Amino acid sequence: MALIVQKYGGTSMGSPERIREVAKRIAHYHAQGHQLVVVPSAMSGETNRLIGLAKELNPDPHGRELDVIAATGEQVSVGLLALALQTLGLKAKSYTGWQVKILTDSAFTKARILSIDDANIRRDLAEGCVVVVAGFQGIDANGNITTLGRGGSDTTGVAIAAALGADECQIFTDVDGVYTTDPRVVPEARKLTSITFEEMFELASQGSKVLQIRSVEFAGKYKVKLRVLSSFTNFDSDDTGTLITYEEEDNMEQPIISGIAFNRDEAKLTVTGVPDRPGIAFAILGPIAEANIDVDVIIQNTSFDGITDFSFTVHRNDYNKALALLNEKVKPAVNAKGVTGDNKIAKVSLVGIGMRSHAGVAAKMFECLAKENVNIQMISTSEIKTSVVVDEKYMELAVRALHQVFELDKLPS
Amino acid sequence: MALIVQKYGGTSMGSPERIREVAKRIAHYHAQGHQLVVVPSAMSGETNRLIGLAKELNPDPHGRELDVIAATGEQVSVGLLALALQTLGLKAKSYTGWQVKILTDSAFTKARILSIDDANIRRDLAEGCVVVVAGFQGIDANGNITTLGRGGSDTTGVAIAAALGADECQIFTDVDGVYTTDPRVVPEARKLTSITFEEMFELASQGSKVLQIRSVEFAGKYKVKLRVLSSFTNFDSDDTGTLITYEEEDNMEQPIISGIAFNRDEAKLTVTGVPDRPGIAFAILGPIAEANIDVDVIIQNTSFDGITDFSFTVHRNDYNKALALLNEKVKPAVNAKGVTGDNKIAKVSLVGIGMRSHAGVAAKMFECLAKENVNIQMISTSEIKTSVVVDEKYMELAVRALHQVFELDKLPS
Repeated sequence: MALIVQKYGGTSMGSPERIREVAKRIAHYHAQGHQLVVVPSAMSGETNRLIGLAKELNPDPHGRELDVIAATGEQVSVGLLALALQTLGLKAKSYTGWQVKILTDSAFTKARILSIDDANIRRDLAEGCVVVVAGFQGIDANGNITTLGRGGSDTTGVAIAAALGADECQIFTDVDGVYTTDPRVVPEARKLTSITFEEMFELASQGSKVLQIRSVEFAGKYKVKLRVLSSFTNFDSDDTGTLITYEEEDNMEQPIISGIAFNRDEAKLTVTGVPDRPGIAFAILGPIAEANIDVDVIIQNTSFDGITDFSFTVHRNDYNKALALLNEKVKPAVNAKGVTGDNKIAKVSLVGIGMRSHAGVAAKMFECLAKENVNIQMISTSEIKTSVVVDEKYMELAVRALHQVFELDKLPS
Repeated sequence: MALIVQKYGGTSMGSPERIREVAKRIAHYHAQGHQLVVVPSAMSGETNRLIGLAKELNPDPHGRELDVIAATGEQVSVGLLALALQTLGLKAKSYTGWQVKILTDSAFTKARILSIDDANIRRDLAEGCVVVVAGFQGIDANGNITTLGRGGSDTTGVAIAAALGADECQIFTDVDGVYTTDPRVVPEARKLTSITFEEMFELASQGSKVLQIRSVEFAGKYKVKLRVLSSFTNFDSDDTGTLITYEEEDNMEQPIISGIAFNRDEAKLTVTGVPDRPGIAFAILGPIAEANIDVDVIIQNTSFDGITDFSFTVHRNDYNKALALLNEKVKPAVNAKGVTGDNKIAKVSLVGIGMRSHAGVAAKMFECLAKENVNIQMISTSEIKTSVVVDEKYMELAVRALHQVFELDKLPS
């Protein structure tokens, strides 16, 4: 008998039929004697519908009101799922974020969880209840409704698991685990039975959509055992999905590369002909940071004759804003020659804990891309990741070629 | 400058376009210097959609979960309306029932308001905010979400007006006031510029759909000035709708009859051949009350040879349940001869404060119906109301004939 937190995504909750299936799956685990806390997302499409309504009335809606509206999606889900569980004869009780309560800061639309009061949940579990808690939402110290940002239900699940000291947090989604890369791009992609938190964190931050990055960060910090599973497989199958685990617990031989992530969400900006003097990076990126634009890759080359080029990438949504800032504020201020940009780029990243102890991964990556005639525009590395920025039209080609060269379709020996 | 509570119904909030119109109307009042608390209903159709989803998952849903789900309709509305007001440059802030907070008892799906904490509302009003409060919902002493039953947003509006000591509570709906009867049945129906609480209460309880009966009761009890207005007329027109007022304040000559209400929501049941002995009414209606079935009209005739017939009406939804109870429990217990029933009936009611001091209203009513060959099945009277039960096929005919005989299309002299 274990205490398990299960999170079900929007596709799993997509219709009354799907909710009934989720209820049966929960009943199956409950019948095995487990204590269950379940965190459902809003029914698929619902959050977009609600935010669409809000934007129709106010193109630049205040976060406080947006959260009041968006939080209803998960509120409906917890009520429906509790009813479906009751139909199966189980004791079940729903909670919104404020009812639990899940205390967050006041950063509307992207709040962070500060604490969770587990008294109600523990009492109900002790009474044999399945406890159904709304994902994605909380309450701030002033009694305002907050939401955690897209994919926030994953974070809710992990945070509750951490607060309860649960044995496992299971993330049920429409894929049956974490793959070496997206199988829609590389059909030979292989499902991983386990992966470390560090690798999962890099994969998530580099564009893998399986888990929300903050939930992985949270799980790593609070040492919550995380498992990714499909809610669409037969629930008495022996498919155990992908376990996300600590490196030190793992006694298997680590492969050099665990997976390949990619995304098209970024855009590249370059300030050319910049005098190479101390403080120039801050002079360029200061106004960008002030405008709340996150910067990802940053490149500055060795200067020639005291003049250099400075490049960085931002989220594609921020491209126009950043370009305008560079032209209007930064260029005159730093006396640059020009500003160029490109929003048709993609980032491809190799991720693997084994990179730490294996030289030559980057060289092998660049060789592979050269053979395919893919020009590398930017390079960025970390201890367990090597990323390149390429023209977005080469993205799939690059991912497929790298998957083959690093033999990710084969089990590591 | 006045403190006004405005309630907007589901049709008024039916689409983003309609919500924008509501926001403009509020801005119009705000520009005149009034302080405004606004109570919107869920967008039309939304509550039905939500309850439909719930019943699909559980045909007999627990009230606690049903309220969690249903309350989201108004939560979305307050957020959207606050955003629409902000777009117009107004300061606006939304509140759910629990945020206000509106404390209710724990009778899920039909909770009653116990108290309203007006601290947040008063603070925001003082800061020039339009305060938008979700109708229909509250929170019980255990932190559960509750709802007030269909039409509960009217009650929320009146209760807030009472708590704040507002100058007026304006109920905006899709009709422009209270009519002598439903204009769809009688095209000559006339809009009343004022009506007393007692009359409005009787009209509402007899089937007039303009206001929820509990809200009228509440307004009468707490002496809240209530006005029914249309949200579809031009908002700078001088249409003042219908004011619902205290008899004692009203210095106009009262007409004998103010209006005619009707409904098809009832069904009739008769237990025949019952021994006429003390306790027989309780023996028949006790089991009905125990099953939570509300009884409206009750008739027992003088007995003949110690044997009598006993008739009563219930809501049509309860007809089958009541019929089964009478046959299975009551009939053997009281040794009755038989049980009969009819769910094709309608009730037609004349309402008027002037009845108190004018004899002959009932006689004139019965004469009129006799002339039209409408058979009267049951009669029930109160101080300011006379109701008859007739075959439902005669309902419109009866209403039209009575409207003409009592000259309700003409202004009272």
